[in-house]
Amino acid sequence: MARDRQMRLGAFLMGVGHHAAAWLHPSVDPRALTRLGHYVHQAQVAEAAKFDAIFFADNVAMLGPPSELGALAALPYYFEPLSLLAAIAPQTERIGLVATASATYLPPYHLARKFASLDHLSGGRAGWNCVTSGSDAEAHNFGLDHQYEHAHRYARAGEYVDVVKALWNSWEDGALIADQQARRFYDPTRIHRIDHEGPFFKVAGPLQLDRTPQGHPVIVQAGSSDDGIALAAATAELVFTAQQSREDAIAFRTRLRAAASANGRDPDELLVLPGIMPFVAETREEAQRLHDELLALVDPRLGIGFVSGLMDTDLSQHPLDGPLPEPASTQGWQSRQKLLVDTARAEGLSIRQLIARIITARGHKTVIGTPTEIADLLEDWFAAGAADGFNIMPPILPQGLEAFAEMVVPELQRRGLFRTEYTGRTLRDHLGLPFPQTPALAAAAE
Amino acid sequence: MARDRQMRLGAFLMGVGHHAAAWLHPSVDPRALTRLGHYVHQAQVAEAAKFDAIFFADNVAMLGPPSELGALAALPYYFEPLSLLAAIAPQTERIGLVATASATYLPPYHLARKFASLDHLSGGRAGWNCVTSGSDAEAHNFGLDHQYEHAHRYARAGEYVDVVKALWNSWEDGALIADQQARRFYDPTRIHRIDHEGPFFKVAGPLQLDRTPQGHPVIVQAGSSDDGIALAAATAELVFTAQQSREDAIAFRTRLRAAASANGRDPDELLVLPGIMPFVAETREEAQRLHDELLALVDPRLGIGFVSGLMDTDLSQHPLDGPLPEPASTQGWQSRQKLLVDTARAEGLSIRQLIARIITARGHKTVIGTPTEIADLLEDWFAAGAADGFNIMPPILPQGLEAFAEMVVPELQRRGLFRTEYTGRTLRDHLGLPFPQTPALAAAAE
Repeated sequence: MARDRQMRLGAFLMGVGHHAAAWLHPSVDPRALTRLGHYVHQAQVAEAAKFDAIFFADNVAMLGPPSELGALAALPYYFEPLSLLAAIAPQTERIGLVATASATYLPPYHLARKFASLDHLSGGRAGWNCVTSGSDAEAHNFGLDHQYEHAHRYARAGEYVDVVKALWNSWEDGALIADQQARRFYDPTRIHRIDHEGPFFKVAGPLQLDRTPQGHPVIVQAGSSDDGIALAAATAELVFTAQQSREDAIAFRTRLRAAASANGRDPDELLVLPGIMPFVAETREEAQRLHDELLALVDPRLGIGFVSGLMDTDLSQHPLDGPLPEPASTQGWQSRQKLLVDTARAEGLSIRQLIARIITARGHKTVIGTPTEIADLLEDWFAAGAADGFNIMPPILPQGLEAFAEMVVPELQRRGLFRTEYTGRTLRDHLGLPFPQTPALAAAAE
Repeated sequence: MARDRQMRLGAFLMGVGHHAAAWLHPSVDPRALTRLGHYVHQAQVAEAAKFDAIFFADNVAMLGPPSELGALAALPYYFEPLSLLAAIAPQTERIGLVATASATYLPPYHLARKFASLDHLSGGRAGWNCVTSGSDAEAHNFGLDHQYEHAHRYARAGEYVDVVKALWNSWEDGALIADQQARRFYDPTRIHRIDHEGPFFKVAGPLQLDRTPQGHPVIVQAGSSDDGIALAAATAELVFTAQQSREDAIAFRTRLRAAASANGRDPDELLVLPGIMPFVAETREEAQRLHDELLALVDPRLGIGFVSGLMDTDLSQHPLDGPLPEPASTQGWQSRQKLLVDTARAEGLSIRQLIARIITARGHKTVIGTPTEIADLLEDWFAAGAADGFNIMPPILPQGLEAFAEMVVPELQRRGLFRTEYTGRTLRDHLGLPFPQTPALAAAAE
């Protein structure tokens, strides 16, 4: 059984680490996040360990205005991620390249073209993590005074994904023929305008490049709100999620698979990868030491800033040991942020206690232990149907990724839970996802 | 004198060549335009020859609807050019990387971030060729029924450039400090919101990454209309232009330099590079043969399609040997397109005659000859003040670039007209352009 069904592993790369104080750790070079080589090295480490993909999150604003408080945090989203993945592509061969891009402020034609270009440039390794932009800081960079409301964002995102997929399918497979003798660069009967007109978008198409090696890039989704689940069930092939317990993860995955089935989809074509922040070392004590060192580096003001961001409320005006005030707004909330804050309120945590609870992994599952202990947990979740694999979020980079690749991956391989070699060339191959036929071909095959 | 002032050379890369029939030539692999390696090879050839930069044009639509006529032409703008340059960056070391991006349909925050990312990723080699989108096909991909009017596009572009530059300057040099001891990742007093509010754009900033190795990417402009010249004189550092004669080129460069001076700028900080399509071989006969082979491959219908595009009028409904009809509209015209059509009308050319006149180089200067003959022409224009250098547009790729690099560049170097080694690391270094200080620093220095 274990040998038939294997885990998928994503390497979630972010700056010099996912931990809020990563850049302050003495083993970390904080300037590394400004250097291409930092990311290329990590991609190569992940590829050598046979990860399915690397993954970059993103937003489109500086988080918070320039301030002494903001200066306590490194910049998590520095390079534009599509440019970064394009630079990494020729320096890797097999590993998938997944980037977040918001469906809120970039016209869908641009997004479809960028990801189609990356899929061609990488030989079929691109994935698009579709998110919506949920902060006023981002809205302010795009002519708006406030972000769109949550439901509006998701309704718009649903149509946006439809437009992007239609553009990706606007050339049938094989429409580019480049036949010098026939003097036909393409077959015009196999290229189609999309002529989309909806409530939010009007786009004629077709795209200006042919269908990509994967048919189209893998579609990823990371929202776990009701709207996010509906969008994922309709269109996503891979879902990243934050889950604190095995039981919650099983419930989430079960719900998502049921929703996909209800949409007439094969639930096995919708993979669920919870985020895991591993603190791994040869001994448990050593792993715990790294965890504790990082927690000790968290300035209380940084935690206040982080929770203020979650709450969309300036908590620096409230006593650190007092209760949480009411949030100013819930429009920008991601579901897991809401979950964390609701939990804190239900348990009556002070602001300080809430910070300590969530600052390490931003709501994702933290695991501290030896390679065996960490592999045990991953196997347990995987076997129980809590996950199709995991999105690994190293606390510090590149060290945390190197440690996972060197210590945990071999243990998973020994157990038959993870590949020892790539068997395909594209991200779809690695994930076991089918090649999406263009609608015209699919219709003809019926 | 020649040794003091040297030419700048750009390698203008487009698909498998600039000639309208390039993809049909038996020496050309038409599918090469879909492969990253095709472009990387050309960038490396240009870098080995010490070119200042490679350059990609762009638009954001398939040119013309899918049709048998369209199928006679290869796709000139296939990959999204910023992604392509990001993939080329780590496979080159010195050569400048210039991409066209339209100021019409991409929000300025996105553009500023993409080019800033490329400048960082490439160690200071990025340039932005700012154009406006002048076709209905592009408008149709972005929710509009028709393109914006010419004057509106340029007024909007002027404000757009201001926003982009303000974002590029929103971090002062040295604002990113990454000081673990002081626990400050950046100096908040040296990062500034831009809070731009104008007729067309409202953007808060700052950018989410620090000032780039070049201060900001080199700003390039390619419009030669009155509006284009005004925009270039205000903000451009490099201008690409189509000039048929030395005298016209002198007049254009003189006018542009005067306009820059009138804006209080040093005219030597605005370089003018006319496009040149070289047919070069060891003998003139051989060079002429390539020219004639390519012209013979041009299907008359393709020429009609091209001129129809220039005229924004379907000429297939008019007799090939009859006169040009009135254009349907002049809103989308670029100045050089207008010049060509006006010339044809003044000379009473038939549609067929107009096609033969302009199909080879789309209005750019064509030069056919031996390396010595071509170097003679370039030296003559350069010495006469017609150009600061040239943007080389090979008729077929990569062969035409290889031929120019192997035969013409050494001749220019022998004459002391072109560098034999790079002396700097950034595109600004190569071009001899100053490092732009951030406004705050410039003010402090006064």
